[in-house]
Amino acid sequence: MRQTRLDLGRIRAARQVIDPVFLGSPLYRCEALEAVLGCAVSVKLETANPVRSFKGRGTEVVVAGLPGGVGARAVVCASAGNLGQALAWSGRGRGVDVTVVASRFATPVKLERIRALGAGLELVDGDHELARARAAEIARYDGIRLVEDSLDVETCEGAATIGLELVDGGAEFDVVLVALGGGALATGVGQVLKALAPGVEVICVQPLGAPALTLSWRARRVVTTESADTIADGVAGRFPIPAVLDDLLLVADDAVLVEEASIVTGMRMLLDHAGLVVEPSAALGIAAVLEDRERFAGRHVVTVVCGSNVDPGLYRRWVGRGGTR
Amino acid sequence: MRQTRLDLGRIRAARQVIDPVFLGSPLYRCEALEAVLGCAVSVKLETANPVRSFKGRGTEVVVAGLPGGVGARAVVCASAGNLGQALAWSGRGRGVDVTVVASRFATPVKLERIRALGAGLELVDGDHELARARAAEIARYDGIRLVEDSLDVETCEGAATIGLELVDGGAEFDVVLVALGGGALATGVGQVLKALAPGVEVICVQPLGAPALTLSWRARRVVTTESADTIADGVAGRFPIPAVLDDLLLVADDAVLVEEASIVTGMRMLLDHAGLVVEPSAALGIAAVLEDRERFAGRHVVTVVCGSNVDPGLYRRWVGRGGTR
Repeated sequence: MRQTRLDLGRIRAARQVIDPVFLGSPLYRCEALEAVLGCAVSVKLETANPVRSFKGRGTEVVVAGLPGGVGARAVVCASAGNLGQALAWSGRGRGVDVTVVASRFATPVKLERIRALGAGLELVDGDHELARARAAEIARYDGIRLVEDSLDVETCEGAATIGLELVDGGAEFDVVLVALGGGALATGVGQVLKALAPGVEVICVQPLGAPALTLSWRARRVVTTESADTIADGVAGRFPIPAVLDDLLLVADDAVLVEEASIVTGMRMLLDHAGLVVEPSAALGIAAVLEDRERFAGRHVVTVVCGSNVDPGLYRRWVGRGGTR
Repeated sequence: MRQTRLDLGRIRAARQVIDPVFLGSPLYRCEALEAVLGCAVSVKLETANPVRSFKGRGTEVVVAGLPGGVGARAVVCASAGNLGQALAWSGRGRGVDVTVVASRFATPVKLERIRALGAGLELVDGDHELARARAAEIARYDGIRLVEDSLDVETCEGAATIGLELVDGGAEFDVVLVALGGGALATGVGQVLKALAPGVEVICVQPLGAPALTLSWRARRVVTTESADTIADGVAGRFPIPAVLDDLLLVADDAVLVEEASIVTGMRMLLDHAGLVVEPSAALGIAAVLEDRERFAGRHVVTVVCGSNVDPGLYRRWVGRGGTR
């Protein structure tokens, strides 16, 4: 049988090197949401930590694994904002120089936080894929470690510790909904569930406007897109990584695409019925339920609320006015 | 030396009977808030659980301690909404009949959730103090247990487990800010800190519009007020309980009053800089910092974010428009 690049033993070991502030995140039923969604809903809340996203789990593993030499203690990554923030946090705590390359169109608060955490920030005049290319260039030129989200197995195995916590939680659930961007979260959580709770359906959710990895999963080969157009900035890639796709094909049961309007409604529902501020990527799971209520009716769904780094002004516009009854 | 009614051994034991979903709540630094507040700020987040407030810690202890006989397995409480919700949750899980008495002016979403959790709900045509009197009447008439928030030591000792987690967290902090209502949270957290981290200043915060327990603490005798007028519905009592005041005098270092406008600004700051939805009571700590920046400058403050049960419409009005830079 084919295997993913991820390893359960290493995922368990990852828990030992990740700062506890990122571990043991809340997992609980949101009954007020259930009434409006028609299925049991639990939330795995990855926003109540110093970087307001799950990415700290992965960057802690990356930085803990760096060799000790002074020259070796510098890293660069491309980021839509959350990885960069997490890497900056982990690097600062462990004396590692961090450079983050981002699109100049990235969410301003994310960029601000990266700077505030002491990382070097370079902006490129293009989208996330251009930032990725530029980060690779810096790594080559400076001879430092390039941290590639989802390709570097530490980022997947760090995210996979969420899966361990879901399984340890002892809750009986039928479905896990995970946001699909580069694939680290989906392959990580999927790997653990397929190994330890194979009866649970792992469904990846991506915006219709940035569908590259979903289309690839469906086609079983890499499909790229010309553009990525979604408010869910955290998952707006266009060039899926072949090795990640291979893993995803082994651990995901489905990959679905959702409309922007559903993402906004999901954000509003999480505010009104769960009291949670989320960034668009973190509402993808609820959006998936909204678009296919029948599929989830009567089942117990866990949605990973993966980040809350939103621009306050935009957030007010998205959730402004009106209830969601 | 005088002692409070609370006992550290019983507080430690309480952790064994409280559903883990309420324990180990997130405790983390919010650096984005620090930049605007001028002091180090950590949040102890008590909203990421099935009842969206810290009250479940206390109600779990209450319900776990009920005798086993069928007649004994019914309780009644007065509540502004959060205690009732938590008691309803704990009662449902352990086969205990719960009746909640509330003011008909209580926050509608709180009342809805109490009903949805299967508790009986009786509304009185007056404020929280009338609800307390009516709950006592029901208890006498029906011969069932009256759960009195803050008077019943289980409610204080349940809340006190937050104090244990603050101390266990190992963080170096100088000040803990707690919302002051009936006093359970303040005496509970205060008790633990005075015992295990006596160098930490315990500051209670109450709205200027509902100052009864603060005035009592300052006068060292019970002071009641004619009315309570604040958006912080969770802390709007008028008749302090003498035994609770006695405890508070032993464990609180200070009790301060804040303006309504500061509470609203605090809510907005927690949204904009921490991505947290909070009810007004949970913003009291930030409000206290805002009103006396000099007192906290350069210190490390922990604020207990004690609840997030807000009416979505009101919440939008409170935090609507404008940033908080």
